[in-house]
Amino acid sequence: MFSVSFGSDNHSGVHPDIWKALLKADEGFAPAYGEDTLTLEVLDKIETLFGENCQACFVMTGTGANVVAIQNLVKSFNAIFCAQTAHINVDECGAVQKFTQARLQVIPTTDGKLTPELIGPYLLNNRDQHHSQGKVVSIAQSTEYGTLYSIEELKILADYTHHQGMLLQIDGARLANAASALNCSLKDITKDIGADIVSFGGTKNGLLFGEALISFRPDLTSDIRFYRKQCTQLYSKMRYISAQFDAYLKNELWRKNASQANAMATLFSRNLLEIPEVELIQPVQVNSLFVKMPGPSIEKLMNKYHFYIWDEAKNVVRLMCSFNTTEKHIVEFISDLKNSLVK
Amino acid sequence: MFSVSFGSDNHSGVHPDIWKALLKADEGFAPAYGEDTLTLEVLDKIETLFGENCQACFVMTGTGANVVAIQNLVKSFNAIFCAQTAHINVDECGAVQKFTQARLQVIPTTDGKLTPELIGPYLLNNRDQHHSQGKVVSIAQSTEYGTLYSIEELKILADYTHHQGMLLQIDGARLANAASALNCSLKDITKDIGADIVSFGGTKNGLLFGEALISFRPDLTSDIRFYRKQCTQLYSKMRYISAQFDAYLKNELWRKNASQANAMATLFSRNLLEIPEVELIQPVQVNSLFVKMPGPSIEKLMNKYHFYIWDEAKNVVRLMCSFNTTEKHIVEFISDLKNSLVK
Amino acid sequence: MFSVSFGSDNHSGVHPDIWKALLKADEGFAPAYGEDTLTLEVLDKIETLFGENCQACFVMTGTGANVVAIQNLVKSFNAIFCAQTAHINVDECGAVQKFTQARLQVIPTTDGKLTPELIGPYLLNNRDQHHSQGKVVSIAQSTEYGTLYSIEELKILADYTHHQGMLLQIDGARLANAASALNCSLKDITKDIGADIVSFGGTKNGLLFGEALISFRPDLTSDIRFYRKQCTQLYSKMRYISAQFDAYLKNELWRKNASQANAMATLFSRNLLEIPEVELIQPVQVNSLFVKMPGPSIEKLMNKYHFYIWDEAKNVVRLMCSFNTTEKHIVEFISDLKNSLVK
Amino acid sequence: MFSVSFGSDNHSGVHPDIWKALLKADEGFAPAYGEDTLTLEVLDKIETLFGENCQACFVMTGTGANVVAIQNLVKSFNAIFCAQTAHINVDECGAVQKFTQARLQVIPTTDGKLTPELIGPYLLNNRDQHHSQGKVVSIAQSTEYGTLYSIEELKILADYTHHQGMLLQIDGARLANAASALNCSLKDITKDIGADIVSFGGTKNGLLFGEALISFRPDLTSDIRFYRKQCTQLYSKMRYISAQFDAYLKNELWRKNASQANAMATLFSRNLLEIPEVELIQPVQVNSLFVKMPGPSIEKLMNKYHFYIWDEAKNVVRLMCSFNTTEKHIVEFISDLKNSLVK
Repeated sequence: MFSVSFGSDNHSGVHPDIWKALLKADEGFAPAYGEDTLTLEVLDKIETLFGENCQACFVMTGTGANVVAIQNLVKSFNAIFCAQTAHINVDECGAVQKFTQARLQVIPTTDGKLTPELIGPYLLNNRDQHHSQGKVVSIAQSTEYGTLYSIEELKILADYTHHQGMLLQIDGARLANAASALNCSLKDITKDIGADIVSFGGTKNGLLFGEALISFRPDLTSDIRFYRKQCTQLYSKMRYISAQFDAYLKNELWRKNASQANAMATLFSRNLLEIPEVELIQPVQVNSLFVKMPGPSIEKLMNKYHFYIWDEAKNVVRLMCSFNTTEKHIVEFISDLKNSLVK
Repeated sequence: MFSVSFGSDNHSGVHPDIWKALLKADEGFAPAYGEDTLTLEVLDKIETLFGENCQACFVMTGTGANVVAIQNLVKSFNAIFCAQTAHINVDECGAVQKFTQARLQVIPTTDGKLTPELIGPYLLNNRDQHHSQGKVVSIAQSTEYGTLYSIEELKILADYTHHQGMLLQIDGARLANAASALNCSLKDITKDIGADIVSFGGTKNGLLFGEALISFRPDLTSDIRFYRKQCTQLYSKMRYISAQFDAYLKNELWRKNASQANAMATLFSRNLLEIPEVELIQPVQVNSLFVKMPGPSIEKLMNKYHFYIWDEAKNVVRLMCSFNTTEKHIVEFISDLKNSLVK
Repeated sequence: MFSVSFGSDNHSGVHPDIWKALLKADEGFAPAYGEDTLTLEVLDKIETLFGENCQACFVMTGTGANVVAIQNLVKSFNAIFCAQTAHINVDECGAVQKFTQARLQVIPTTDGKLTPELIGPYLLNNRDQHHSQGKVVSIAQSTEYGTLYSIEELKILADYTHHQGMLLQIDGARLANAASALNCSLKDITKDIGADIVSFGGTKNGLLFGEALISFRPDLTSDIRFYRKQCTQLYSKMRYISAQFDAYLKNELWRKNASQANAMATLFSRNLLEIPEVELIQPVQVNSLFVKMPGPSIEKLMNKYHFYIWDEAKNVVRLMCSFNTTEKHIVEFISDLKNSLVK
Repeated sequence: MFSVSFGSDNHSGVHPDIWKALLKADEGFAPAYGEDTLTLEVLDKIETLFGENCQACFVMTGTGANVVAIQNLVKSFNAIFCAQTAHINVDECGAVQKFTQARLQVIPTTDGKLTPELIGPYLLNNRDQHHSQGKVVSIAQSTEYGTLYSIEELKILADYTHHQGMLLQIDGARLANAASALNCSLKDITKDIGADIVSFGGTKNGLLFGEALISFRPDLTSDIRFYRKQCTQLYSKMRYISAQFDAYLKNELWRKNASQANAMATLFSRNLLEIPEVELIQPVQVNSLFVKMPGPSIEKLMNKYHFYIWDEAKNVVRLMCSFNTTEKHIVEFISDLKNSLVK
């Protein structure tokens, strides 16, 4: 096993505050499936945080959050727009197609971000019975490419989406990283920009497991509990997700963890930029880095560290930081990288 | 909140040994999605326990275990046979139908158990293109009714199933309770009776979350990992399920927990049988009791205890014991019940 | 090949008036997919026939009509109620499950007809997230058992269905036979009893192919064209279905054909009742007969006639009449049956 | 209504030989669902035509042919590769996604044709559980763009497909046009190039309705009848499709009809090329033309003729010829077009 991993933010463990909350919740009996008082309290806190008239619930995984969310919004003859690099397109083994039976309209991008200009040419929402009718624009904030939508970009995209009679779903597995990087509230980049449904990820940011799903259109998502159960995403001993989120919200632990991950990525990028043989192929805006480096260096570093090759042909690797990445990890990696470059 | 719940075995907390194992696993970084060494080790232990040539993997929930298992075995034009009271028929919000698009052929039973005689009249496996072709017999051991298949009954059912060109899937959310009650090994009631795929539940028996899925037909289930991911049942930080199962297997913690639950149900039933106004409508074979009692008593007891009404018209309630049900809980309930009967 | 078939009403050919209409429609070019003027005209006629504010469209097959209809009404977490003998349960190879991913709640009946009393015990529409929520009651008029709902029975069932927040779908593959037998209009047994969506079958009553689908809830079925296309039920050269329905409606050809089929079944039953060795196990209300007769007679008759064994164990066969069944066919069959009984 | 349509080959009527065959088949009773002798005979003829060990059956529509075919080959975690312009991607309202729940991997092309070089970069068949595993390459011969794969191109594509562990499905709605244009047999461009399953369209080439589906891998398609029924593509009065195909095969009526359509398109293109203001944006290889012409001309011509605008921004229209397009139609159109260009 590797002592340090830059493979993914889910290679990290669980934050000590989360463990404490879990153990504290472990007293006596509690009703299952979310009927316990702790769950009701914590959902209430989340709804307060994200704004009025929203509706929150918990699911178990990030893929689960996406498919539960999207199912509420589409019928099988609809189309869902997403970036070609989107997690729902590439990394969920076709889960969205499985659950919705709808068409995924994949759009090539350079930076993982959708815009009205990119979506426009693919729209076929003319009520012609031969075409899947576009209904959802699905984005991730931050994206799979570690890029960020600005608040202004989000507003423009949400307006366009609604103007076309569609709905905006945000995969927020790394929403904490985005809010931290933009130095804004969670509400600023969800409810206030006009999102219709959004997930707020925990697993990749120090939780044991658990994601929150927040709907800003309770009128459209009144059946969400049925989709959650039918999708296998209803956790029985719900108090243990609620306890984690209680700790996650307290003193903005979510922001502290995400800030640490982001800061380490920034530090990392600053160090990498000083090495002439190395190139960053995407801006470092949150906690991931897409780094081009000489092949032999990749090979040497992989003997000691865990990370993924993103593009084998181009010698691009992905490095991810998490809440428990430290300066020491980075200093050591940079040093090893420099050594690997010495002839 | 109620101090004592007989509502379900998932109203209980988590066993202390499980917490210890979780905290121990929380060191440093680990690859995600099951590529860590602990996961490989623990799956190996499970495979050893269940017999040669079987293939184990972890999923997150009981419903998840059922749908991942069954998807490997059927196509959309197939039929799946189950008891009318089966969890997959009544309590999973149609998850099996969602994932398989196949036909659930529901069979009425008196005790929640299927037999060749009960299945026979519903078979339409004649290759007539108008009929869904029967492919899977799905049972639970122990059943939703708290009843048990004997080893002999399981063998007869498995033989019949195979003879008809079908496969036997066992929902083992309470397999530990069954093995404990039958005083046998897990292998005795799965591989050795001819089961094709079976789940081994943890969540209802003291785990935080996690179920194992064991296939005895690796030739038929070579795609199981894809179904697991596509179904949202692939947990990223897998080491934490593996750690729990490691502790669960150690010194047969699973049996100890289940035995305690079963023993408390037996004690409960003995006490209940002494009360003339009360009737047990199903034999108490594992950890649940289906009890008929006067309506006013139900009403009074529900003010203090959490449990479910099973049949409102007939005044039947379900009482469930778990690993942390104690004699004291039962003595108190019996005493309250008796008081409620005094005019 | 058999010269006479009582196997099914789709063993018959096509009525001469239908051929004439088809050939007449075969002039020049016409837009496809229903945009031709003939289609618009004929749909208009159908809408006039079935009542104000209804919406009609054509599909290709009876199974197609059922799945297009039901998809408009349910989501995957819903349940659909039908009789155990229903075509959608037994004879469509699981098509409803395939298209809707919903739960079919099958209800045993003696005569193929649902009633509020039969449905009641299966209702689980309590918004409990564990249960598929009942949404559609699906019946056939006339039924697979050749039985008929009276107008009063239909009204009671529709009222009950709506009172429970559900919708009533009628499989009208043999709606013509029902209207003929009840001596009423098509509107009397569809719109006026409160049906929400209904099919009006042609294929089994003298058409080459084609069924009409009539929605009385256009507010709920505004997406019906998309479901029709996605289901493979959109016929390109639509004018040829429209032409058939034009002829079918003219001078009530549908009623003439159905009346002939029904009358022949009545004549058949009268003759059969005179034979002591023979028993009718269901009332003969439209065009099918369920007849118990000695095994050796079945065997002998099957050498000459085409018909199906309904229940092998009980020596019950099904005999169906169609628009081109004649008295001569029946007289001959009865004579052969009597001869077969002579020792 | 327009007297002449270049809108689609399904705007044409039915060939007189087909009507004759239909009327001839209309004698007496016949078993339904393909059990009649005529159906068996005609399927046998088709199997002889397409080569040894193939397996043929009939479906009702072109979309039906595609979804029945593909369902036999994929599971829900698979990916299906097709051109961005493919009928299954653009014009079937998401039918393939509905029936398979699998991922459509859409590939941009310039001419509607796939090649190994185009597919390669999209392959993710590495058994990584996060990715939909590629299983089918779906092409149309001829394509939606009216282009043709040469026999050599087909062989290369089939070899590549098989080498990658995948299967080749051909949408042959216009297979007759392809075989006619390539002056080869149907077997030459299906079985002999290594196709695994192919449809042989009738509706767009003079039939009333009906398509044949031919599997060259009966080992993989043994369940095809169940998929056909479950998909609503099983026609009850099957003799009437069989009769049409009997006439279609006789003296190669399919080739005569297709040749006429192709020849008219060639004539059309020759005339169009003489007009300087007009441009053909795709080679004319079968029966369709993609023509760029001045906007005002499009407007004027659309008052008299039926045809579709393919690309509004670029003033490109699609013109299609069919078996009953005549020289007179073309001469008249060309004349009208020329007049429209006079200032």
